[in-house]
Amino acid sequence: MEAETTTYTFGPHKIDRSLVFYSTPLSFAMVNLRPVLPGHVLVCSRREVKRFVDLSADETCDLWLTAKEVCGRLERYHEASSLTFTIQDGPQAGQRVPHVHIHILPRKSGDFENNDEIYEAINEKEKELKEKLDLDKERKDRTSEEMAREADEYRALFL
Amino acid sequence: MEAETTTYTFGPHKIDRSLVFYSTPLSFAMVNLRPVLPGHVLVCSRREVKRFVDLSADETCDLWLTAKEVCGRLERYHEASSLTFTIQDGPQAGQRVPHVHIHILPRKSGDFENNDEIYEAINEKEKELKEKLDLDKERKDRTSEEMAREADEYRALFL
Repeated sequence: MEAETTTYTFGPHKIDRSLVFYSTPLSFAMVNLRPVLPGHVLVCSRREVKRFVDLSADETCDLWLTAKEVCGRLERYHEASSLTFTIQDGPQAGQRVPHVHIHILPRKSGDFENNDEIYEAINEKEKELKEKLDLDKERKDRTSEEMAREADEYRALFL
Repeated sequence: MEAETTTYTFGPHKIDRSLVFYSTPLSFAMVNLRPVLPGHVLVCSRREVKRFVDLSADETCDLWLTAKEVCGRLERYHEASSLTFTIQDGPQAGQRVPHVHIHILPRKSGDFENNDEIYEAINEKEKELKEKLDLDKERKDRTSEEMAREADEYRALFL
């Protein structure tokens, strides 16, 4: 998919390419350190851009074409029937990592008792993620191996 | 902006063009019958498409370039500092009107005591909207005139 030398960053954080399961020259899709639901992934711009409006037209199109490329496969793989797409664009919208990213979540009937709790869960997890990453602590909900294994599964969906 | 004969539809519903404040050949932005926050608008594909994955590449790009065109102006106009973008893609994600649409909401510090209540509010309003539209009742939170006035204000942002 990408050259050995390719690097990915998410805000101030370096992302190991074993966690990236799909990429283009302008965007990449990665598994999530603390997913809210099975298949909860992030689609990010390659360039570190804080706000959605700062993406170029090419980056905007590529980001969402990447999301479209990814979302149907994830929905089928997780036997879901709907999807939630969200950009929390800026701190007052719940954005914790200042780098444009789409949350994609495969949804099923009854996955959250109250359908809207999912957003609360996203924010809570993203907050934890930032704390984790900022503090550079080693505590994790998932191991790198577990995450890389999930990325392998998703990478296979594109073969 | 558009020819007198231009018509807009949102799922099964005809949308009066006085409510549309920005449009392209593939997308349009309209004010909301029951906004959750000031400046809560919808960006819709012109073609009636239920699921995001069913948009063409051109429609996908145009939808999000339209959102980008609109969002900065709305944020400034409402003196907000962040934005929430959400697609509820399918019924299990809270979609009530089966036509791809982006919710855009200007966000400010403290606009919702719990930041995530906004999603609950979106779903609740969209549910009410569907009930209203489905039942074709005349009860409305806002009058057509009020909505058209808001659309006029937003249209002026593009002059």
